[in-house]
Amino acid sequence: MFPKNAWYVACMPDEIADKPLGRTICGEKIVFYRPAPGQVAALDDFCPHRGAPLSLGKVCDGELMCGYHGLRVGCDGKAVSMPGQRVQGFPRTRSFPVVERYGFIWVWPGDAAQADPAKIHHLHWAESPDWAYGGGLYHIACDYRLMIDNLMDLTHETYVHANSIGQKEIDEVPCKTRVEGDEVITSRHMEGIQAPPFWQMALRMNGLPDDQPVDRWQICHFTPPSHVLIEVGVALAGHGGYEAPADKKASSIVVDFITPETETSIHYFWGMARNFKPGDPALTAQIREGQGKIFAEDQEMLELQQLNLTRHPERKLLMLNIDAGGVQSRKLIDRTLAAEQAA
Amino acid sequence: MFPKNAWYVACMPDEIADKPLGRTICGEKIVFYRPAPGQVAALDDFCPHRGAPLSLGKVCDGELMCGYHGLRVGCDGKAVSMPGQRVQGFPRTRSFPVVERYGFIWVWPGDAAQADPAKIHHLHWAESPDWAYGGGLYHIACDYRLMIDNLMDLTHETYVHANSIGQKEIDEVPCKTRVEGDEVITSRHMEGIQAPPFWQMALRMNGLPDDQPVDRWQICHFTPPSHVLIEVGVALAGHGGYEAPADKKASSIVVDFITPETETSIHYFWGMARNFKPGDPALTAQIREGQGKIFAEDQEMLELQQLNLTRHPERKLLMLNIDAGGVQSRKLIDRTLAAEQAA
Amino acid sequence: MFPKNAWYVACMPDEIADKPLGRTICGEKIVFYRPAPGQVAALDDFCPHRGAPLSLGKVCDGELMCGYHGLRVGCDGKAVSMPGQRVQGFPRTRSFPVVERYGFIWVWPGDAAQADPAKIHHLHWAESPDWAYGGGLYHIACDYRLMIDNLMDLTHETYVHANSIGQKEIDEVPCKTRVEGDEVITSRHMEGIQAPPFWQMALRMNGLPDDQPVDRWQICHFTPPSHVLIEVGVALAGHGGYEAPADKKASSIVVDFITPETETSIHYFWGMARNFKPGDPALTAQIREGQGKIFAEDQEMLELQQLNLTRHPERKLLMLNIDAGGVQSRKLIDRTLAAEQAA
Repeated sequence: MFPKNAWYVACMPDEIADKPLGRTICGEKIVFYRPAPGQVAALDDFCPHRGAPLSLGKVCDGELMCGYHGLRVGCDGKAVSMPGQRVQGFPRTRSFPVVERYGFIWVWPGDAAQADPAKIHHLHWAESPDWAYGGGLYHIACDYRLMIDNLMDLTHETYVHANSIGQKEIDEVPCKTRVEGDEVITSRHMEGIQAPPFWQMALRMNGLPDDQPVDRWQICHFTPPSHVLIEVGVALAGHGGYEAPADKKASSIVVDFITPETETSIHYFWGMARNFKPGDPALTAQIREGQGKIFAEDQEMLELQQLNLTRHPERKLLMLNIDAGGVQSRKLIDRTLAAEQAA
Repeated sequence: MFPKNAWYVACMPDEIADKPLGRTICGEKIVFYRPAPGQVAALDDFCPHRGAPLSLGKVCDGELMCGYHGLRVGCDGKAVSMPGQRVQGFPRTRSFPVVERYGFIWVWPGDAAQADPAKIHHLHWAESPDWAYGGGLYHIACDYRLMIDNLMDLTHETYVHANSIGQKEIDEVPCKTRVEGDEVITSRHMEGIQAPPFWQMALRMNGLPDDQPVDRWQICHFTPPSHVLIEVGVALAGHGGYEAPADKKASSIVVDFITPETETSIHYFWGMARNFKPGDPALTAQIREGQGKIFAEDQEMLELQQLNLTRHPERKLLMLNIDAGGVQSRKLIDRTLAAEQAA
Repeated sequence: MFPKNAWYVACMPDEIADKPLGRTICGEKIVFYRPAPGQVAALDDFCPHRGAPLSLGKVCDGELMCGYHGLRVGCDGKAVSMPGQRVQGFPRTRSFPVVERYGFIWVWPGDAAQADPAKIHHLHWAESPDWAYGGGLYHIACDYRLMIDNLMDLTHETYVHANSIGQKEIDEVPCKTRVEGDEVITSRHMEGIQAPPFWQMALRMNGLPDDQPVDRWQICHFTPPSHVLIEVGVALAGHGGYEAPADKKASSIVVDFITPETETSIHYFWGMARNFKPGDPALTAQIREGQGKIFAEDQEMLELQQLNLTRHPERKLLMLNIDAGGVQSRKLIDRTLAAEQAA
């Protein structure tokens, strides 16, 4: 159960640079391609002629040509031509609203009439030269909501990521969860602690000492259908923490776009946006590599958790205070689903 | 849905040279073996004692001995002996009519009483010293009819095999389809074109110039249950094309025996029979290698097409003029199936 | 269908030496671990918090700590603590009776109230310094009863193990099967034969000549739920065979603990206990390696037999005199199952 009338991240631009890409989004098998430089299109990945996957075809003169018998389809899904055939009566291929924005390709797998690009989640950091972004994509065999739970409750860092970003203070300091309209916010502030290795590096990159006590924060923002953006950072202790002036802190945003593939699998687009040394691609690569290793640690846990839940659908899980972020996020999702079904 | 009262190619002789072969044909799990040099037998691959696969056994004195407890079965499926046992009362193992002919092992997976070896498709080239044959076997996860469609509509060569045998003229020249009794014939004649690389080679092998315009033909013959034999060739332009005298042309036969394994998988026996340089095994090997690469290009397309059709069983495919060969072939198959079910 | 109120071998001690082990036994997904040196515990492998597998966690202070969010569970399944939480109301995790004995970890997957460690199969050789044991574990995709059949009818050695322990005399000499209470015994005595390689070695290790005729015996003991222990040995011919005095024979016990994982898969614990040169670990390793190779030969046969039986559930198998051991064992199992269901 996932909302279909929503903008999801479908792929990264480099995935469609050379040829069409076939990918299943919310149960819809879709081909993504560039009809022309700077444009993007998305069609049902099924040739109306004989059912071949259009994603095995190629782009010719702005049209997607089926790689089996040469039927050409326009971005709107209308059959344009086929050698030796009249194509006027051919059934139209479903096209999906698709937009390239903020360095991602976004798709709307539901009712096209409701697809308003203005509803795409605004990413301020993606529009500013003061920020840099690096990230990756993992395929994980779990319900997308398990990943939302995971990200809206960072106490798991203490255990799953014990050797990297986890630290004991995370699950010793209670988190606070609140709902603001269509957003769930879970925040945790740790004061006067030792900065873990990643933040020591970030402090140095910001020209700050790395051996002094810091105040550390994690502020997770969930918005439907399944985006989790996490403000993370440290400030030299005693300067106001999250509110400290820019020259006393280092911060970044952990970016998580969780796109359902099926009911029990996701395309997980993860990354980090940072506002220090934005012009340093080697640093971007280094952070991406480190984050990729850390985020890979969640995969086994989530996939085995999914298998356990599939095995025991009758079991009720606990909803503790640390789970409030996930619980509230699921309530928002349920409300979104109910609205979608009522319409 | 496949006819079962029909002769299918089951395997190549070298597959049973040293030991029994277990293979599923039209849903029947069968063990093929040689009881003696030059003979071939086929039994249900299930030992009546404890259900072990007989294909793990070995041939002893003309009998197939189960590799689990030593039960021996004759070619007729009768239990012959077992250490310390009387086997008279043992249930008989089903035997399948099987014939070695034309360099292939043919099996009849249906009602044995109707199996007449005279019904095996006649392959004139397999009996003549003027011809040579080379081929291979692919396992492909698709309904056997998708492969028939593929072969009865060679316009796909322009797209799937764009870098080898495909050429633009193929889908520019219309094909003609006719039904003659139990045979569907789709033919295409291209006149005054440039010979593609394979045919340039063949022209040279026939002592003909390779740089002159040629007339090229492709004549696909479908016969039930699932054989497609394709006459292909080129003649120096203006000498009558397909009807040109032998010293003005080069030709061969593309051989396709499509044996259903299950409803959605096939054993695909492909090859080429040629009537030039038949005594040149290096040329046979070279052609086989080239053809093997080309025919492998169809696999991904067919398997993904199958997945698309399985995903959307409700969708009707188009039946264009280029599809007439496949459409008529399916009609013949449907008639064969109806006759089989009525009986 | 397997008895659940029974002691099964779950794992070897070295499998839980460093960290918890998740393993499915009779359909129950269980985590095994050592709360303290010399102790063993077994819990449902499902964290009551969010369904994470506890087997990804670690042991802390005698408690099993979930690797996702740090919930700690005691050996009795009671939640003990969790950072920032009160756990009194948490649901209890099911614990399974588990005992370490004879060098194996035994688990009772059924009704804990009936689990009496006194019912664990007594292994005299495991308690004596005169014996040594070596063995291994295979995962095989077959119904546990197919492995019992296999072991209670050693005529298969002639065929499956033709190149190692098989010899023609095995299936020439009839076996005798008898039931004694809750035990099925199938025995075969071969007189005045040549010792096969393994027994030639064993004779030498016992200070006996290896080139003289011997009497050889195989006495298979089945006890529910699924243990098969096989007394095997040779004596110099004419000294009474199995009853010969100790200085005229060499013998050992083939150990087979067959633990169902699912209806069609098993954990197969195999090994050999011997009462010669017990203090020679190199000999133990050598025997284990040889036995491992031989026992691996059964895997393909059993897995393909299982596929055949799954394909044809309607087919009745034969029950010959050589099958009496398996047939009687299955009767005992059926009786055990009926009693379990009646209770």
